[in-house]
Amino acid sequence: MFKVFYEDLKIGETEEFGSYVVTREEVVDFASKYDPQPFHLDEGLAKNSVFGDLCASGWHTGAMMMRMIVDRSIDTGFASMGSPGLDKVEWRKPVFPGDTLSLRGKIVEMRESQSRPNLGLLKSEYEVLNQKDETVMRVIANSMMLKRPT
Amino acid sequence: MFKVFYEDLKIGETEEFGSYVVTREEVVDFASKYDPQPFHLDEGLAKNSVFGDLCASGWHTGAMMMRMIVDRSIDTGFASMGSPGLDKVEWRKPVFPGDTLSLRGKIVEMRESQSRPNLGLLKSEYEVLNQKDETVMRVIANSMMLKRPT
Repeated sequence: MFKVFYEDLKIGETEEFGSYVVTREEVVDFASKYDPQPFHLDEGLAKNSVFGDLCASGWHTGAMMMRMIVDRSIDTGFASMGSPGLDKVEWRKPVFPGDTLSLRGKIVEMRESQSRPNLGLLKSEYEVLNQKDETVMRVIANSMMLKRPT
Repeated sequence: MFKVFYEDLKIGETEEFGSYVVTREEVVDFASKYDPQPFHLDEGLAKNSVFGDLCASGWHTGAMMMRMIVDRSIDTGFASMGSPGLDKVEWRKPVFPGDTLSLRGKIVEMRESQSRPNLGLLKSEYEVLNQKDETVMRVIANSMMLKRPT
């Protein structure tokens, strides 16, 4: 099932992938469960907020980004072993219902794990883009990946 | 509706709050939508993963943290104006169905916005704890808050 291992990747490699259509129903559903601030739930209240209209929770945008990453990872057969965390999350612009998101990913650092000889550690920069090619969210993510079995 | 403004807060103030019971149904529902990796969907496959059992997506843990923050913020009447991003996210331990999460929050930096004279900027450290008082997630978050209207 795994086809792409740590050794198959290179620093600086950039890929564009994914496509995620943001619906009002999903924005409100996510916000109702996890981020019930008025500007994520109600157009009327959102008009008077800093965002100017109903927009997705930043955590929802992160979740949609994750879905695009996981779909790509499974399709490609990445030997992905999860993530210990993120170094940076920037919510740069609001995400509105009707937007179509996509993703640009770049590997910025690679090193072998000292404690686990079967793993490599990656640092990647992800930019979530809307249909106007604006960066709505930027993330620096750490992840673990299997080395090619010998 | 707002009762607590930037001027009412102090660096170093720590609060413990929130309570969130993690269910298997919600773990699988969130993962199906946003993070369909095997160890978030299927006990059998999770047993052979680094996590040892079915566990929540890290983005789901972040979303549950956000719900506890927003509930608290609304209850207290915090004059919260959203967040430009996070400086750090650490997923330290897996979150399992049946866990009860809570939150410890501390203000670590405060400064007035240069560009928007009606806003103060906060940096806060959040620790998501499980029922064994283990830190499962740690986040350094930036947020904006209204100053008290003059």
